[in-house]
Amino acid sequence: MTENEIKTIVQKTLDRVKVQRIAPEKMTLKLAKELTAAVQNEAVKKGVKAVVCIADSAGNPKLVESMDDAYIASYDVALNKAYTSVALKISTKKLSVLAAPGGELYGVQFTNGGKIVIFGGGEPLCGKNGEIIGGLGVSGGTEAQDTELAAFGKVYFEKIMQ
Amino acid sequence: MTENEIKTIVQKTLDRVKVQRIAPEKMTLKLAKELTAAVQNEAVKKGVKAVVCIADSAGNPKLVESMDDAYIASYDVALNKAYTSVALKISTKKLSVLAAPGGELYGVQFTNGGKIVIFGGGEPLCGKNGEIIGGLGVSGGTEAQDTELAAFGKVYFEKIMQ
Amino acid sequence: MTENEIKTIVQKTLDRVKVQRIAPEKMTLKLAKELTAAVQNEAVKKGVKAVVCIADSAGNPKLVESMDDAYIASYDVALNKAYTSVALKISTKKLSVLAAPGGELYGVQFTNGGKIVIFGGGEPLCGKNGEIIGGLGVSGGTEAQDTELAAFGKVYFEKIMQ
Amino acid sequence: MTENEIKTIVQKTLDRVKVQRIAPEKMTLKLAKELTAAVQNEAVKKGVKAVVCIADSAGNPKLVESMDDAYIASYDVALNKAYTSVALKISTKKLSVLAAPGGELYGVQFTNGGKIVIFGGGEPLCGKNGEIIGGLGVSGGTEAQDTELAAFGKVYFEKIMQ
Repeated sequence: MTENEIKTIVQKTLDRVKVQRIAPEKMTLKLAKELTAAVQNEAVKKGVKAVVCIADSAGNPKLVESMDDAYIASYDVALNKAYTSVALKISTKKLSVLAAPGGELYGVQFTNGGKIVIFGGGEPLCGKNGEIIGGLGVSGGTEAQDTELAAFGKVYFEKIMQ
Repeated sequence: MTENEIKTIVQKTLDRVKVQRIAPEKMTLKLAKELTAAVQNEAVKKGVKAVVCIADSAGNPKLVESMDDAYIASYDVALNKAYTSVALKISTKKLSVLAAPGGELYGVQFTNGGKIVIFGGGEPLCGKNGEIIGGLGVSGGTEAQDTELAAFGKVYFEKIMQ
Repeated sequence: MTENEIKTIVQKTLDRVKVQRIAPEKMTLKLAKELTAAVQNEAVKKGVKAVVCIADSAGNPKLVESMDDAYIASYDVALNKAYTSVALKISTKKLSVLAAPGGELYGVQFTNGGKIVIFGGGEPLCGKNGEIIGGLGVSGGTEAQDTELAAFGKVYFEKIMQ
Repeated sequence: MTENEIKTIVQKTLDRVKVQRIAPEKMTLKLAKELTAAVQNEAVKKGVKAVVCIADSAGNPKLVESMDDAYIASYDVALNKAYTSVALKISTKKLSVLAAPGGELYGVQFTNGGKIVIFGGGEPLCGKNGEIIGGLGVSGGTEAQDTELAAFGKVYFEKIMQ
């Protein structure tokens, strides 16, 4: 093997690694749009007019979209579901059990400026490595519908991240 | 003309009126998405990472999207620019003159829970009949850039509504 | 006893009183830092990534520190646990019983702008004389872990104040 | 050199690079504590009783410390200065010019829920690569003193990041 061949091999390997280093997994607007469209399609099938929010890993909203004739109040709820999922790293459906009277987090819904939602419809979103890189909040249907839509969105997102 | 022919004509006219009556012009998510994509394309050309918000005729957000690496603070600003444009039925650029010290609306920035923006980047959006059916807020570049992007968006929107 | 001996005794007594009078016990940043470091060490042992907050006797935060990768929502919770412990002069664990449905303080979680926390992890901190001079809030683990960490912190603090 | 020797060398290099990948530059509590201590030392020299806040790259507070006898109101101001520096990627001193009456961002102080500070004492903090990885907020002295302390902190931080 010549020196040049070796250099080429090393350089190619390093180039591939470098791309990984400067591109850590994170929520992009492109990903957020794709996920939102998928959740909206599913909502249409269920007859739900939903507000969908995607938050980044800091809990800040990346995208919010309100389907035609969605409830006005669903905007805040979707935003806060996405925030909650990231801020507490938990599905809001699971949180609803912990935050119920008698549960170990009963009262958390009152202590964060009204930003913690304790009913279904919020899911943390994981990247390829299993790290939480964002959150999904869906609001507009019944709690059961919102929970299903968020769960659908979580599965959908994690599939496209593989 | 036979009675039937007359009936048919009247019915057709009524049908047309009915369609118009039950379909007043309003901001739809489809329209909001199309406008946002156009503004984002323009922002890319200018090298601006913008948050774009489209409000409906009530000032409520229909869509908010944050381009990758946009300023965190731009989310609130874009939302409030869209709100302001609808709530005061004015471009925020024009409002900046009226709300400056000495201007006739000086002080409006303190009286609405911090939701009134008095610098460029917000534009009311009119339907075919010239009625305001929504608002556009753009934040992320310099004030000049945001103002241009919002003005571009207003023209774009009103063209597709024709 | 000579007059001088008496004067000396009186003076010494006055000196001691004066010192006590001008140096009431209060939460200092130095104390807050020492306590926080101790609680963080304990959190590391338990594998908890906690936010620790120390409030002064007015309930205002003296120090807040967020361990790497702590929950985003834990910041508000830790702050409010410290506040609650001082504001109601009670451990938030004990408060959880009083504020549960049917309890004599049921509803307190709704009446203070969302600042009252009613689950474990907050403890009032007493000085040498048993007076409350601050509060400790810990958030980041399970309720049981937060409760243990706060109780540990209370004991630690009151030992160093002796 | 055999192929195996080459592979070993490449692998070692990759391993080193991998460490870089899983450790992107970010604000840690350790860094925040070191910077805070340095700013506090400088504040003592100036006779200023400051509140110091370090935010992470999302604008969320990593650490807040209030020096003994600092103004109660300085807590919120320091927090918001750190937030503003990250959220708008600008020194709050520079922002004060843009947000003054007649400036292109006049009014921004009213539009973000009161979180935008437009006087000196806030600085974005850059990592080794020049990317903003956090923000520093200092409040407690005159505006000139806070501005100096924040500028001192920025220089100090960026030196230890080299």
